[in-house]
Order: sequence, then C-alpha cells, then structure tokens
Amino acid sequence: MLNLETIITPTLLLDESKARKHIAFMAEKARTQGIRLRPHFKTHQSAAIGEWFHQAGVSRITCSSIQMAEYFAGAGWKDILVAFPFNQREIGKVNELVKAIHLELLVESPETAAFLDNHLVAPVDVWVKVDTGAGRTGIPVEDQKRISAVCQTVNDSPLLYLRGLLTHAGHTYRARTREQAAATYQASITQLNQARNRLTKQGMPGLEISAGDTPGCTLADDLGIVDEIRPGNFIFFDATQAAICSCTVKDIAVAVACPVVAVHPDKEKAVVYGGAVHLSSEHYLDGDHKVFGLVTMLNPKGWGTPIAGAYVSSLSQEHGILHIPQPAVKTVNPGDLLAILPAHSCITVSCIKKYLTLTGETITTMNYAGV
Amino acid sequence: MLNLETIITPTLLLDESKARKHIAFMAEKARTQGIRLRPHFKTHQSAAIGEWFHQAGVSRITCSSIQMAEYFAGAGWKDILVAFPFNQREIGKVNELVKAIHLELLVESPETAAFLDNHLVAPVDVWVKVDTGAGRTGIPVEDQKRISAVCQTVNDSPLLYLRGLLTHAGHTYRARTREQAAATYQASITQLNQARNRLTKQGMPGLEISAGDTPGCTLADDLGIVDEIRPGNFIFFDATQAAICSCTVKDIAVAVACPVVAVHPDKEKAVVYGGAVHLSSEHYLDGDHKVFGLVTMLNPKGWGTPIAGAYVSSLSQEHGILHIPQPAVKTVNPGDLLAILPAHSCITVSCIKKYLTLTGETITTMNYAGV
Repeated sequence: MLNLETIITPTLLLDESKARKHIAFMAEKARTQGIRLRPHFKTHQSAAIGEWFHQAGVSRITCSSIQMAEYFAGAGWKDILVAFPFNQREIGKVNELVKAIHLELLVESPETAAFLDNHLVAPVDVWVKVDTGAGRTGIPVEDQKRISAVCQTVNDSPLLYLRGLLTHAGHTYRARTREQAAATYQASITQLNQARNRLTKQGMPGLEISAGDTPGCTLADDLGIVDEIRPGNFIFFDATQAAICSCTVKDIAVAVACPVVAVHPDKEKAVVYGGAVHLSSEHYLDGDHKVFGLVTMLNPKGWGTPIAGAYVSSLSQEHGILHIPQPAVKTVNPGDLLAILPAHSCITVSCIKKYLTLTGETITTMNYAGV
Repeated sequence: MLNLETIITPTLLLDESKARKHIAFMAEKARTQGIRLRPHFKTHQSAAIGEWFHQAGVSRITCSSIQMAEYFAGAGWKDILVAFPFNQREIGKVNELVKAIHLELLVESPETAAFLDNHLVAPVDVWVKVDTGAGRTGIPVEDQKRISAVCQTVNDSPLLYLRGLLTHAGHTYRARTREQAAATYQASITQLNQARNRLTKQGMPGLEISAGDTPGCTLADDLGIVDEIRPGNFIFFDATQAAICSCTVKDIAVAVACPVVAVHPDKEKAVVYGGAVHLSSEHYLDGDHKVFGLVTMLNPKGWGTPIAGAYVSSLSQEHGILHIPQPAVKTVNPGDLLAILPAHSCITVSCIKKYLTLTGETITTMNYAGV
C-alpha cells in the first residue's frame, strides 16, 4: 500500500507486479519460439529491476550507452550489447569494458570498423546496423553494396567478430493498429533476411539477425526468422504504446504521482506540479492535439483507469497542464494527487531516476543524485 | 581554451563571458528604469553561476520549486520568490524555509490562501498569480471578481502579506519579431495595472506588479509600470529565443558538444551522440519542420555560427539526428565533435546538470549526481 501523505512532490510510481508479468510474457514468447531475448535496459536503468529479468532467465542485455553498460557490468551483467553506433571517442572506456565482460558493438561505416581494428586491445563482437525504414540511422537495407563493404571490413579484422545484421524497426511506432505494427515488423525481418542471404552468397555465411522493438515484439505473434530480439519499453509500456495498441492502458506499469496546485473548472483545466523536467517533453498526437500523458485518479492501492477525455495538454519546466472534462474536473482540488501515465516511460524514468513501488519500496536508477 | 580530446560524451559547454554580459545588460536595464531585477534561477540551477548575479548587484532571486529554493538558500540567498502555484503538500518544507530566509509564494485560489493561513508557522509574502494571456495557469485577468476575492482572503490573513499581482506573459514566446514580443509584454503590463487600479479602488492600495519573461524584458525598451521583473533564460538564451528575435544566434551562451557517430552524406544527415536525455525533447517550428537545435562547428576557442540550413531534426533517447545540407555534410566525419545550440537551454541544463566553460572549468548544478 502507498502512504499518499508522504508524496509531496512528483513521484514515479511503479507497479512491480505488472512489470514482472510483462517480463515473464516476453521471456516466454522468446523461449517458445527459440529466440534469444536481449532486453533493452535503457527503459528501467536500474540494477534492482535488472534482477527481475535475471530471475526470469535473462542473461544477455542491451544498453544505449557505454556509461549504461559500465553501470550494468558493475551490477554483474557479463554479456552486453551497446545498441548505439560506436562512438570513437569512447575507445578508452570500451577497452576497459572488454577486459571485464563480453561486449558487442554496432558499426555502420568501414571507417569506424577500421578505427576499432586499429585501437581495440581485445576482440569484440560487432553487429552491422541496418535501417529497414525507421530512418534514424544505419545503412539503408537497399544499399547492399555498403552493407557488404562494412561486413567485409569487419570480417577482415582479427579483432572484430562479425555477428550479423541488426536493426531497430522504430517505424512500428507510426502504427496505430496491431496489424500495422506486426506488418511493419515482419517486413523489416524479411528485408534483413534477404540482405543476410546475399551476404551468404558473397562468402559470409552464418550471420545472425538481431531485431525487435516493443510494438513489433509484442504485436507480432510470429517473431519470424530472427536470432535475437531487443525490446525494452515493454517492461513498463506507456501512453504512446497504448495509442499504438501494443498494450492497453491497464497494462502501463509506471505513473507519475503529481500534486494538484490549481484547478480552473470553467476551462476544464487543472495544473499539477509535474513538468518537462519530470515527464519529459515527449508526446504523441491524438487527432489534432498533443498528448503528453493520460490522467488517472490515485488511491493507496495504485492508480485507476484514465479519466475519460482527460490528458496532459502541455508542459513547462515544472507545470503540467491537464485538460479534464466536466464533470470530472469538479472533483479535483488543490492538494489532491493525480497520477499521470507518461507519453514515454523511458525518458520519464531518465528524468526522475527513482521509483516508488506500490508496496512502498524505493528503487533508484543509474545517475540518481540522492535527493 | 577547450581540450577537445577530453570531450568524449555529450558535454554542456558554457561561454562565461557571454553569460556575464547578458547578466550585466539586464541588471543595468532594470537599474536605469528603477525596477527590481529578481532573475529566475531555474535556467542555470547553479550556486556558482548565482554568484555572477550577486557580483552584478542582484540580491533577490526567483525559483521554480521549493527544492530549488532550498538549494539556493543553502548557497546564501536570503530573498527568494517561488514562482509556482503553492503546493499544499510542501507546507512542511515551506515552514522550514521561512525560518531561514525571506520567502515569497504564489497563490491563485482562496482555498490555497486559507490553507496557508491555517498551516504557516511564520508570515510570508504572497503574490496573486494572474493570467494575462499565456493560458498556462493563474486567474484570468478579466476575472476581476476572483482576483479581488483571492486578494481579500490573503489580505485578511495575519500570516500572509499581500505584495501584489504577478504574471508570466509566456505568450511572448509565440512572437516572431521584436515588435510582437514587445507589444505582448506591454499589453500584459497594461492589463495588470488596470487590475491593480481596481484593487486600489476596492480598498487594497499599495500593491505591486511583478512580471517579465525573457522576450518581453529583452525586447521592450520601456519595461513599463512594473515593480519587479523576473526573466531567467536571458543568461544563456537558446535557439528558440533566436527564433523569437530575443537574441541573435551569436548571443547564445550554451551549446552541447556531441560526438558524431554516423554520417549519411547522400541523405544530408549526420547522427550524433546527444539525444532527448541530453537536449530534452523541446523544439520549435521553423516553417513546417521541427527544430530541436541548431548545428555549429567546434574548435578549442568555442563554437562558431550555425551551419547554414542545418538543424537537429529529431531526437531519440541517445541519438540526435541532424539535417546538414550539402556540401557541409561532406566535411563531417565519425569521431568529430559538433556543437548543438539547444532549442531550450533551461531544460537542457536540467538534463545534463554540469557545465564545462570555454576556459576549461567545471560547474555543477543542483541534483548533479557526480558522474
């Protein structure tokens, strides 16, 4: 039970039972399809929560930075993929990490592969990053010439072991139905397999495929011909995932408890202490309006379902501006707590850096400043 | 001089000479017009930088949270306004603070004024928050009945000293010319004065006016009939302020040095290590595209003017995606550093929590975790 009286500033709440259920679901889904689960830990950023994955049989993880890999290596993880294009300026840190753990890196240019070959002190596994349509980074999957060139440079290095092709099909986030997300995921896997088959014919056999964002891994019943999946957000989900249909709003495992500081019933508006420095400025579009989060009532057992028609309509540094339709807005008063289901749980965690579970336990993340 | 070799991850750079020049400008502008400057410290969040204001003759400050007020009280500031609607749940902290410093609070409802009257252990000064068009929070300036009622409740309390009316005319941020911003500021001041005059007639004389956002205070030559201004962002400015014309891009005093990790010249795109957890997801619209920051080259003396036509087009957790037109994109290589002028400097500071000055000095902010 929560002691609501002790919540006086924006507080990140965590429903541990939901999170553990989501971990168990994904672990079981990967296991039954014979696929390795290498969950992305950028979502929770916590050694304590990492243990919940360990207890579910997970032994390999993904991180989004070398610093995060250092943190989780310190927490006992021995097999870490840094799913971010290798940053040459961090070669010193990488050379320290490879002494302690099995490290896997991403490259997407022959120059970076050559840099690693010249500067590494010990071998590492390398994945070549391919863009199957997300448009963020990676070699476009159509550009087989460049994919082959980078793979060949990696293959030619005695210090680099070419694992295969990796993608983040982030364009599943543009889906708004289960079918759209699953189709985008499957198209991405098909493209990667075609690229792999061409590499096999070019004399590079045995390469693997690593894929898997949360919408795709959640919504595609058949994970397809992949060796490894790397979803992260699924442990908590968030309002954006609910909009994509990756989850229902009831599945969301985190919420930010925010004190109400002003109510303007005639404008169907409430103002909470909880702004961009707590929730981040992440949002999604619902029709013509931006949604920075959904709004729920809070009780000592946790939060309820979202108030119909209510949402966080804008944020400034410390203020959250909520649209709450009549008559619900009339039941809200300064001094109350509301719970906000964030638009993007990963960045919200990165902002607040500390969880309070519904059983009253405090859990911290990397970079927590102790205040 | 910067030692660029030591910059290996996203690093918030600060040009101290520009920041001190901006402080001096605003201090002098307020002084010559006989107006108190109570700068908002939510922008820099640093005790060390606070000293630069102190050296410019500033003795009163604004904070956006009780926690920030505690931090700056600990750094020796004795006169602090918390420019955020009073959060009833923090009454315990407020009762500690009022023992140590002169504290000023905001209220915008009779209920909150009554709560303070019932729970305070010592007197505080109170400002009534009025909305002159920003639409964030505060009593609408047209609602004189409610303004009068809240003022009367404050006035009737022996523990609350009614200082006057306060606004944040945040709608100046919608301006795109000097004239628009100055006109919005002046209209806001005129409305506040009319409301004050009505209160005088209702038997509440001697009330003051506190106003002043960065666009208004920078662009209005005549600060008008106000007693106090509270701009914050002007110490650093940012790309949004340059879009409003509050400053030129050359005036921006902070930039985030980001390692380049991938370049796609044919797509006029570069990818840097520097994402939403560093720059925040704040952005502004330039025509039909979002701008999360402007892009400059970096040298040991600092950053240059923005690369023409280049901007940060999207962010994910750790990735910054830059649009850099030809031919400039061909000069960028993995391993280089680029400097990003952030869309919103305040939130960027809140994300990174540590500065590196161009003379190589490290300055930390509140909540810095020591890593």
